[in-house]
Amino acid sequence: MFNKVLIRYGEIGIKSRGTRRRFEEILKNNIKLALKRYEIEGNIRTLHRRLLLEVDDSNLERVVSILEKIPGIVSFSPVVECNLDLEEIERTALEVFLRRVRELGRDTVTFRVKTQRVKKNFPLTSVEVNRYIGERILKYFQGAGPGNITLKVDLKNPEITLGIEIIDRAYVFTEVFRGVGGLPVNSQGKVLVLLSDGIDSPVAAFLMMKRGCGTVLLHLKISEEGLEKVEKIYQVLRDYDPTSKLLVFDYRGILKAIRELLEEIGEERYTCIVCKRIMLKIAQEYAKRFGCEGITTGDNIGQVASQTLRNIYVISEGISYPVFRPLIGLDKVEIVDIAKRIGTYNISTSKELRCFAVPRYPVTRGDVEKARELERYVLERIGDILSNKPLK
Amino acid sequence: MFNKVLIRYGEIGIKSRGTRRRFEEILKNNIKLALKRYEIEGNIRTLHRRLLLEVDDSNLERVVSILEKIPGIVSFSPVVECNLDLEEIERTALEVFLRRVRELGRDTVTFRVKTQRVKKNFPLTSVEVNRYIGERILKYFQGAGPGNITLKVDLKNPEITLGIEIIDRAYVFTEVFRGVGGLPVNSQGKVLVLLSDGIDSPVAAFLMMKRGCGTVLLHLKISEEGLEKVEKIYQVLRDYDPTSKLLVFDYRGILKAIRELLEEIGEERYTCIVCKRIMLKIAQEYAKRFGCEGITTGDNIGQVASQTLRNIYVISEGISYPVFRPLIGLDKVEIVDIAKRIGTYNISTSKELRCFAVPRYPVTRGDVEKARELERYVLERIGDILSNKPLK
Repeated sequence: MFNKVLIRYGEIGIKSRGTRRRFEEILKNNIKLALKRYEIEGNIRTLHRRLLLEVDDSNLERVVSILEKIPGIVSFSPVVECNLDLEEIERTALEVFLRRVRELGRDTVTFRVKTQRVKKNFPLTSVEVNRYIGERILKYFQGAGPGNITLKVDLKNPEITLGIEIIDRAYVFTEVFRGVGGLPVNSQGKVLVLLSDGIDSPVAAFLMMKRGCGTVLLHLKISEEGLEKVEKIYQVLRDYDPTSKLLVFDYRGILKAIRELLEEIGEERYTCIVCKRIMLKIAQEYAKRFGCEGITTGDNIGQVASQTLRNIYVISEGISYPVFRPLIGLDKVEIVDIAKRIGTYNISTSKELRCFAVPRYPVTRGDVEKARELERYVLERIGDILSNKPLK
Repeated sequence: MFNKVLIRYGEIGIKSRGTRRRFEEILKNNIKLALKRYEIEGNIRTLHRRLLLEVDDSNLERVVSILEKIPGIVSFSPVVECNLDLEEIERTALEVFLRRVRELGRDTVTFRVKTQRVKKNFPLTSVEVNRYIGERILKYFQGAGPGNITLKVDLKNPEITLGIEIIDRAYVFTEVFRGVGGLPVNSQGKVLVLLSDGIDSPVAAFLMMKRGCGTVLLHLKISEEGLEKVEKIYQVLRDYDPTSKLLVFDYRGILKAIRELLEEIGEERYTCIVCKRIMLKIAQEYAKRFGCEGITTGDNIGQVASQTLRNIYVISEGISYPVFRPLIGLDKVEIVDIAKRIGTYNISTSKELRCFAVPRYPVTRGDVEKARELERYVLERIGDILSNKPLK
């Protein structure tokens, strides 16, 4: 019955006309790419501040779960469309309503009609349409309709809201699915995300995607198990940014060298700081190569003793690209909630991998001069860190 | 009846013993400062993973609204305490329960008892206490109690949950208020926040406070009306960080000069970029002077045409302090929600102030070399931007 989906977007609508057009094109393209990834064919066109996607009925369920993850979409509804003719609207409304009543399978059902005139090109007002269609539905159920169901109008909290949107045609529906909101991926340029197998960085990646950034995910590989988890996380994140790329860089040897060199001179407490400084340098280099306009990390404050403001400063000092830390204002419980919602939490927590190089007592208030000096010391001894080619 | 409040904190509890002690002291101090601001006297001590605040009954309502805003507090309850003696607990529980029943003023009330043994120093288990006290309450209402009220046990969704926490003594309560969560302000060092009269930057300040940062708020004043709004916002934000300072720096003359100088050479499109670069330089200078370990801004992506990733890069290039942008991953609706919740939204939107210097067509993809050059050109002509002393 439903082979069309009416897609509503939010913030895009606020923009100037030119920007809105550009954003609509990007959103359409993202939806196409996402459908293609799951081998679903679809046709998509722009209505007045809406998109209309046409797919095969049989794919509807999968399409719903795909659209739920595409940034820029605020909500969407599988719809039946008809001409802007009151009789046709009535017929369609009854059909759609009846189907939903049957799905519910209950004796008493409360409902309301909610019309929105997206374009003001229809002789009746929204309120008039609500009243007219509502009355027709009530009459139908009293008359020739399924006699054993009692209908009641409830404007506040009905079990069925029959929606009608008046645009170029009329679109009738009973379900509204929520999207992730935000802006279409790639409408705001690209960022490079340092992606690990933990809980935080996948959430950071998602939040930047939600704000319209295309992503290049860079994993600095320390172990095979870590990479396996990251590859699973990548598959989940691609649902949000179908254009996302995963780069893998072999980092184990570098980290091992950092730890050993610092231990030799009794400075192993600085291992994490020097390691992260070098990670950011690698990230910055790849950000340049891939046309990214910033680096994103899962940094947040106070989860472990060494995650101090001071250490964030000591680690990112000397990086000229902006470092985006979308988790900086979030509590751990909030980060975990998002990770669960987006589907990365179970992968991240499936197997806890401990970094072999973490010293027993990491520095909690690093000194920036010292960190710079130790980094130089290490880099002089391990050679060109960027000579390694990405593994993929 | 209630002159004590049992305060629960979350993340602090996870830390090592030493860190936890330090955090508890900071939290106690923050609570004292907040009470002092409203001229409320209180006595506060540490229990086992809880704080106990003693205040005058008559202040309880105000104390609740103060505690609701203090970062680091997960929840709290006005309590009546008694010795760890089952008969005393029963008597206290009945007293507390009766009071709540009377407040509700209903014929039928559902309830449950929920005991937590924070210290395991009591002979009965939590379940045993629940059962015993629950039965005593039921019996009381059947017998000598207020005969016209019907009590029912409901373990899932009761109208009254009678809470009992077993610590050094027993603490009995029926209300649990939620706090803002996060970490105690000043447990994580200080940040300088660029504070304007708009919706965003107060939310950014709040989020950093919530993550345990002390704050120095710097307002670059352009108009008296703007400053008036900022001073009101400051009063609201001080409820979250009672140690917060507001610095005001006269910026109008500098901004006027930037605009005029750029207009003369036909580069007024770069006004906002050069303005914000200079703002960040002033912020960095004050961050240094006040011992802050980072700069916080209300930056987010895509609200207006010039808020692009590229421009964020072009603006913050050359700043060696980390720039925290806690709103970077949030949608406008999410930012507005937080602003409403914390109480700054109505002030921010009370009077829209437009910046006089914004050009008609601001650059949307600035060039970093050019921005640097224009900034140098401007700075050479307006002299030492830091010679202005803060107004307050």
